[in-house]
Amino acid sequence: MNYTLMSKQDLENRLELLMSRYEDFKNQNLKLNMARGKPGDEQLALSDGILTVLSDDEPMCGVDKFDARNYGLPTGMTELKEIFASLLGVDAKNVIIGGSSSLNMMFDYISQCMTHGVCGNDPWFGKKVKFLCPVPGYDRHFGILEHFGIEMILVEMNENGPDMDKIEELVKDESVKGMFCVPKYSNPTGITFSDETVQRIAKLSPAAKDFRIIWDNAYCIHDVTDTPDTLLEIFSECRKYGTEDMIIEVASFAKITYAGACVSALVASENNLKQIEKRMFFQIINHDKVNQLRHVRYFKDADGVLSHMQKHKELLAPKFSIVLNSLKDNLSDKGIASWTNPNGGYFVSLDVPEGCAKRVVSLCKEAGLVLTGAGATYPYGNDPFDRNIRIAPTFPSTDELAEAMKVLCVCVEIASIEKLLK
Amino acid sequence: MNYTLMSKQDLENRLELLMSRYEDFKNQNLKLNMARGKPGDEQLALSDGILTVLSDDEPMCGVDKFDARNYGLPTGMTELKEIFASLLGVDAKNVIIGGSSSLNMMFDYISQCMTHGVCGNDPWFGKKVKFLCPVPGYDRHFGILEHFGIEMILVEMNENGPDMDKIEELVKDESVKGMFCVPKYSNPTGITFSDETVQRIAKLSPAAKDFRIIWDNAYCIHDVTDTPDTLLEIFSECRKYGTEDMIIEVASFAKITYAGACVSALVASENNLKQIEKRMFFQIINHDKVNQLRHVRYFKDADGVLSHMQKHKELLAPKFSIVLNSLKDNLSDKGIASWTNPNGGYFVSLDVPEGCAKRVVSLCKEAGLVLTGAGATYPYGNDPFDRNIRIAPTFPSTDELAEAMKVLCVCVEIASIEKLLK
Repeated sequence: MNYTLMSKQDLENRLELLMSRYEDFKNQNLKLNMARGKPGDEQLALSDGILTVLSDDEPMCGVDKFDARNYGLPTGMTELKEIFASLLGVDAKNVIIGGSSSLNMMFDYISQCMTHGVCGNDPWFGKKVKFLCPVPGYDRHFGILEHFGIEMILVEMNENGPDMDKIEELVKDESVKGMFCVPKYSNPTGITFSDETVQRIAKLSPAAKDFRIIWDNAYCIHDVTDTPDTLLEIFSECRKYGTEDMIIEVASFAKITYAGACVSALVASENNLKQIEKRMFFQIINHDKVNQLRHVRYFKDADGVLSHMQKHKELLAPKFSIVLNSLKDNLSDKGIASWTNPNGGYFVSLDVPEGCAKRVVSLCKEAGLVLTGAGATYPYGNDPFDRNIRIAPTFPSTDELAEAMKVLCVCVEIASIEKLLK
Repeated sequence: MNYTLMSKQDLENRLELLMSRYEDFKNQNLKLNMARGKPGDEQLALSDGILTVLSDDEPMCGVDKFDARNYGLPTGMTELKEIFASLLGVDAKNVIIGGSSSLNMMFDYISQCMTHGVCGNDPWFGKKVKFLCPVPGYDRHFGILEHFGIEMILVEMNENGPDMDKIEELVKDESVKGMFCVPKYSNPTGITFSDETVQRIAKLSPAAKDFRIIWDNAYCIHDVTDTPDTLLEIFSECRKYGTEDMIIEVASFAKITYAGACVSALVASENNLKQIEKRMFFQIINHDKVNQLRHVRYFKDADGVLSHMQKHKELLAPKFSIVLNSLKDNLSDKGIASWTNPNGGYFVSLDVPEGCAKRVVSLCKEAGLVLTGAGATYPYGNDPFDRNIRIAPTFPSTDELAEAMKVLCVCVEIASIEKLLK
């Protein structure tokens, strides 16, 4: 039943049926939310042991011999650096621990580039600065760039990552100073950059000496299937070409322990760390070290984190299945939608017919289902094709999610047929 | 026994005696540290109940109904805003909660002024920007200004606060854009701004529309005697003259709970908050809310905090007494030193003869006593009189402190006599 091949009469009949289903949903006064990539309540509860893992029975310091409760240790506890290093496949000496938010670390880094430039190059403030933005992408990356008045250049994502032909061309422009990306289980497509993509990124030779890639590895260990993706470790690849200064990697425990109270990390080359640590010296005496110690005591090591992630997977796998099965059952073969089948991360990316995304989100809202705003996955909230919708399955319960997906699929069908009938 | 009135021979005899005492200290291989305003171990232990105050038995949210463990509530929990508001005498609606560091909030605010200007005025980046720096002052304030290339203009502190005649004159220069200060139990003098000083600050009419005072109220409730100072509430005074946009106040629990893991706050007018919150929207989803909840549950309200501060006072009062008694017993009437007698805060400020501070610090260091670097209380670490030494009595034990003060006083005498003999 491919809608694009159906007669006008058949489409009108189908639309009538769908509208009656839609009215039924509206009459149920639903309150459903699939807007943000927030962990669900059951996921949060997985980490509640961390609340009481510390007590005054045990010494409040680690191998650094700094009392976690007092000032000091600006770049964080060694044990926590080692855990991040092991999870990311990097060297602990290249890791700086931050506060509860890796977004904060990214924002501060770009802010530093604005006022102090990159490793001895001119500050970006007042200069023409452009960033490459793989799309669809993460709205908060675009937000940082928007805040600092950095021009965003769209680069389409494909199943291997961003369009590397285009990137290799664009970096010849000296005003192109960087790129934000989520290399594994990308937000929102769930795509992991292929080995070739990572290698081509490592091999880049941008005209701008101060070109920096914010490698937001937010979902580095966040699998939702038994066939997880693997990502080439970027610094190892970069070292082959002497380009490791190009990468600023971040990660956090936002979706491991608590989104509202975790620890974050930044990984960078010695040259970059030198500049970042110099700025941090003026900015903060230390981030919350007691929460660092809490995480270290709770997990002990990287294996402790990985087995904890299995529990998240057990909670999330059924939710992703609900979304994907619902899309398959309701939208397959209708010629109106395509979507991603991620092995991890927090999102499924849904493409509806051009010009229909806003209409779908609006229809859903009227029926009591809040989705991420259409366009949010594009710079300035403007999807030039009005096509992409980000589905965030993690926060609702499985029951709510099943209901939400029914509403969404009906709305996609309605908006698509409306367009075909125009 | 005023050294300035003594004969050369008597001074030489005295110096010989002091040098022999000094050698005794050196032979003891002391390891003493009065360098930083860090809480002592016993002070940290006062708050250890906060480590286990949360458990999964109780709901993890407050009146805002936001789960502290999840994303959301960027400006912080209402209950914690109310506690800060009550302690500072301001309205909770003017309070934003930060992370573990008020220094971080100050740094970020100045950084914001650099890239985005103040409430619609031009960004400071690339402009001639000067700040007023009451001296002696806090090295980390000067550090922020140095980092951003802001010119520092010295303003002498007196027993009522900074020299207001000079400030009223200096703000006529439009390139003078602000001032950092610690209005209560000032770092390092321990002086609290008099009512008249606060009123004259509130009445300032700077040429620069974007003039901002960073009102670092770090020691707002940090008394060490039974005759505490009181500070006029600055926003109430400013409202009389419509100048409340001029003030950015910060405070933290660094010296209430844990220096290494606390909560901080920023207080500002609606106009300033609007701009700060807009920036924070791009910078962070939320600061650590679980630690906010931990503080709320532990203290319950402002009274809980105030009675907790009594315990700090009981630990700190004897330490301040040791310092002040030692200075009095050893240096009074010798014509070589003057010092402050603070009712609170974390420091005693000691002035030695001009040109002697570096020598004193260096003599102490050789004898195993680390002091704050001479000059640290001045911009660029440069005390133009080489006179001021910041004494931080909180971290050492009372025994160590008594020993350290003996060393310090002998070194002050030696350096002073050396100068008189020149």
